[in-house]
Amino acid sequence: MAYHSSSHTGYTPSAPPAPDSHGSGRMYPPPTNYYGPARYGSSHGYPDFPPGTHPDVIRSFQMVDMDRSGFIDESELQRALSSGYQRFSLRTIRLLVFLFKNPNDSLKLGPKEFAALWSCLGQWRAIFERFDRDRSGKIDSTELRDALYSLGYAIPPSVLQVLISRYDDGSGRSVELNFDSFVECGMIMKGLTEKFKEKDPRYSGTATLTYDTFMSMIIPFLVS
Amino acid sequence: MAYHSSSHTGYTPSAPPAPDSHGSGRMYPPPTNYYGPARYGSSHGYPDFPPGTHPDVIRSFQMVDMDRSGFIDESELQRALSSGYQRFSLRTIRLLVFLFKNPNDSLKLGPKEFAALWSCLGQWRAIFERFDRDRSGKIDSTELRDALYSLGYAIPPSVLQVLISRYDDGSGRSVELNFDSFVECGMIMKGLTEKFKEKDPRYSGTATLTYDTFMSMIIPFLVS
Repeated sequence: MAYHSSSHTGYTPSAPPAPDSHGSGRMYPPPTNYYGPARYGSSHGYPDFPPGTHPDVIRSFQMVDMDRSGFIDESELQRALSSGYQRFSLRTIRLLVFLFKNPNDSLKLGPKEFAALWSCLGQWRAIFERFDRDRSGKIDSTELRDALYSLGYAIPPSVLQVLISRYDDGSGRSVELNFDSFVECGMIMKGLTEKFKEKDPRYSGTATLTYDTFMSMIIPFLVS
Repeated sequence: MAYHSSSHTGYTPSAPPAPDSHGSGRMYPPPTNYYGPARYGSSHGYPDFPPGTHPDVIRSFQMVDMDRSGFIDESELQRALSSGYQRFSLRTIRLLVFLFKNPNDSLKLGPKEFAALWSCLGQWRAIFERFDRDRSGKIDSTELRDALYSLGYAIPPSVLQVLISRYDDGSGRSVELNFDSFVECGMIMKGLTEKFKEKDPRYSGTATLTYDTFMSMIIPFLVS
């Protein structure tokens, strides 16, 4: 869970919303809208979820893990998060998979990683809503800076400017970010910062990198 | 022209192709398919092109610079290159603008930068075609490695693998890159390598970076 650090946010995870009309997290309606009914009816098939994982989280995972492999890929994650949060762009989803997947696994998430991601998104949404004061569903660059600071990332103005330009539609209007874009920005900051910290174990604020290390650190973020 | 270094390729620019049926580069048909006839009829309005610039290059620029501002933006560049090369993806176009634009200008290219980009693409296409032995219009990962090596970039296998995965459609087939993707890969390598060299003036292969510098170096590539 290297990337699931709630410590520096000071926030407890917000309770995940009910993903659909099925009230109790204890019932698992067979996903007949997919490839036929589920081949089981309880969460016992997923012992890998951390103790105390909210039933809605387990259900969201089970609903998309049709082959019961215990792992979900990009498109399955996109569907799983849609039930509790929203449909994220594939660009954001790829970044989430890259940052939360087990380093030893391929581009998939298991129960532990999914639970960590869900919890992290809960915290981030709480912070997003805190800075989206007018409840417009969007935050501006200043609010983004403050929100990222709440997440533990102090962004240099020059970096913030470039980061924001990613969402400039060229209309001349001041850039505003929705939750999807906020998560993407935050995950980029989170991921690159973690990478840098790996090379700066003493937190001196400076790291010495070889060319190969430098390239290997960055290219994955360009792929997402 | 920091990014237009033909020196390490050992190739001379290939002559740009005739963009259309207008044979002589001396005639400038008014682009009536746009916003009315051009307000001038010769290349004298563009003294900023380097001496000896091929008339087709000047014409490609003039054809899209409708407001005669002397600068072209992303979409104009996409159209300009379509006349001589092909219609590149906006993702590649943004990377090209970012790498070739004058650092002091906004996200636009002037005559000098456009001429440098056109020449660079000429060299890269010559290399692409050299490695696309079966003339399929695509190269595989090994050919990409060799082609990038011809451009002066020796990619660590781990980096090459991640870079290639960017173009994996998940079908299980071995990844192949068209010219657009090749240019994107090459420009990423070119851009990141130049950034690293700036921090490693003695070419020791190692650079010491502060956190802010590290972030500022990378974020622009994520924006493109």
